[in-house]
Amino acid sequence: MLTLRNPHHHLHQGRHEMFRGRLVPCHETPQRLDHVLAELTRRALGPIRTPDTDAAALDAALAQVHEPRYLQFLEHAWSDWLALDPANAGRDALPSVWPAPGMRSDLLPENFAARLGLFAFDAGTPLTAGSWFAARAGAACAIGAAHAVAGGDRSAFALSRPPGHHAGAGFFGGYCFLNNAALAAQALRDAGAARVAVLDVDYHHGNGTQSIFYARADVLTVSIHGDPRTEYPFFIGHADERGAGAGAGSNLNLPLARGTGFERWREALRSGLDAVRLFGAQALVVALGVDTFEGDPISGFRLRSADYLQVGQDLASASLPTVFVFEGGYAVDAVGINTVNVLEGFGA
Amino acid sequence: MLTLRNPHHHLHQGRHEMFRGRLVPCHETPQRLDHVLAELTRRALGPIRTPDTDAAALDAALAQVHEPRYLQFLEHAWSDWLALDPANAGRDALPSVWPAPGMRSDLLPENFAARLGLFAFDAGTPLTAGSWFAARAGAACAIGAAHAVAGGDRSAFALSRPPGHHAGAGFFGGYCFLNNAALAAQALRDAGAARVAVLDVDYHHGNGTQSIFYARADVLTVSIHGDPRTEYPFFIGHADERGAGAGAGSNLNLPLARGTGFERWREALRSGLDAVRLFGAQALVVALGVDTFEGDPISGFRLRSADYLQVGQDLASASLPTVFVFEGGYAVDAVGINTVNVLEGFGA
Repeated sequence: MLTLRNPHHHLHQGRHEMFRGRLVPCHETPQRLDHVLAELTRRALGPIRTPDTDAAALDAALAQVHEPRYLQFLEHAWSDWLALDPANAGRDALPSVWPAPGMRSDLLPENFAARLGLFAFDAGTPLTAGSWFAARAGAACAIGAAHAVAGGDRSAFALSRPPGHHAGAGFFGGYCFLNNAALAAQALRDAGAARVAVLDVDYHHGNGTQSIFYARADVLTVSIHGDPRTEYPFFIGHADERGAGAGAGSNLNLPLARGTGFERWREALRSGLDAVRLFGAQALVVALGVDTFEGDPISGFRLRSADYLQVGQDLASASLPTVFVFEGGYAVDAVGINTVNVLEGFGA
Repeated sequence: MLTLRNPHHHLHQGRHEMFRGRLVPCHETPQRLDHVLAELTRRALGPIRTPDTDAAALDAALAQVHEPRYLQFLEHAWSDWLALDPANAGRDALPSVWPAPGMRSDLLPENFAARLGLFAFDAGTPLTAGSWFAARAGAACAIGAAHAVAGGDRSAFALSRPPGHHAGAGFFGGYCFLNNAALAAQALRDAGAARVAVLDVDYHHGNGTQSIFYARADVLTVSIHGDPRTEYPFFIGHADERGAGAGAGSNLNLPLARGTGFERWREALRSGLDAVRLFGAQALVVALGVDTFEGDPISGFRLRSADYLQVGQDLASASLPTVFVFEGGYAVDAVGINTVNVLEGFGA
């Protein structure tokens, strides 16, 4: 299986995230990707390359999934942050005010601190000097992996970081800026797959991906995740969200209680795969978070490392061209083993 | 002029607020009210009392302006915060995740950290052990002052803290939890005034008050404030917001550019007073922030201390029974002089 790795992901390295009223060190670190890369290399699962992407083509791909004003915001965010106060060079940008329900999001505030809050839904996703550059290069991995699969590969792995599945067309959060899985799905559609499914197995609901495709009939979004009544991102991811308009019926949420173990989790995976089959998907994108691991410091399922081999085998049973996109997983020492177990279980 | 002071305001004392990616000491401090109280006492402007409020009557009054689930959240917030982690006893509660546009606010998350974000629109308003108790007692001042005016007093001053004008029916922010000015306006309505006007002269747009009365024809809301394109609260307070439904035409925003001095500001005040007259208000509530002061550390107008005497005289020209409600003002040493100048200019 081809891996496309993000050579610039180290440029995104947040210092702190807000958690329960204080600033704590970021859980989402460059070491996460390094561990996956080391494990991929150790097991020699296939070629590992960096994406070879034309900047204009990448811009065009991003614009198919994300809003122009949001992309412009991301592109200029760091220089705008410095313009607010030169001392900001030593600080990550985190939002401190945002629109309450009923406030306006139609106008773009001139004040950058306000624009930051307009486009963010948490204060856990620090925007740094290198975030835009790193996120763009990560997105290129996802699009490149989709192109490899569209070109005939049975599967490909986008080792993209920062993660993407919490990012919407016009918002960031949950450590995510650009929605890599959505970009891969759109690239598969553009390459000719009439119907594409995104199956999100990260511990946290893939809210960004859901929202991007919520009103579309050509992309099925399925997410297996911690119940949002108690788990992040809290305000979305319930079972009654089934899609809207032309997309009615094309979203499936499978929330599970904190503490769920592999047996019950695997039943949800089978339901998700049934939905993918029923949908008639011609290609599959797996939003591959491994924060379902029992040792994950910020999540609550109880999957073990060996279970991820089975997850890979189950995903292979869909017999679809498959793009894997790296998402969450914060038990840093195990994230490589667990991620590569899925890929090895799927088969190279 | 009777002053009703909040005897419990010291119970709300936040430690830090988020500002440009870091936690900084709170601008909204108990010393603000203490300075106003000292100046009121020094000038002997009239009797100073604490409100004498029946708890059930206060609950009923709060429920006329605020949503039941929001009041329940505030009442239990501190114990819920402690239940999340006993170590939270030493930390103020600040939100770190909130619903992006399109996410759901219909369901109440079980996780308190999420409920905090559901009801907040900034991370500048720390919720502390005594916030609910202090805010309730502050609201009682505003309602008591309205009752004094409804009972025949020409004017009364609610020295309520924390401030209120940023708090909506179901959200807090901007150092505000309960909307004291809205509660006073509603109390005046209930006491028989057919039409009531709220005139907000704080530097920041009175977004909470606007939103509470936005669809009502019986309460006019006018706000003179820093242009939200560059000033907090950013996402509301523009000139094109004129009210909705039955309330169409009953909201007037008079945004002014940062740097505005008294002459131009006073023109806006005259426009606001014209609107109050045209509306046919039978009573007036003044949301009295003095962060329009040239020395205010977080605001941008250039009023001087002597100007506030003129502001009081101009307000008196409306010849309406008037409730003053204390709002912002962060130049602590001057806040007492400036506030009492308005009251003295109005005339005792």
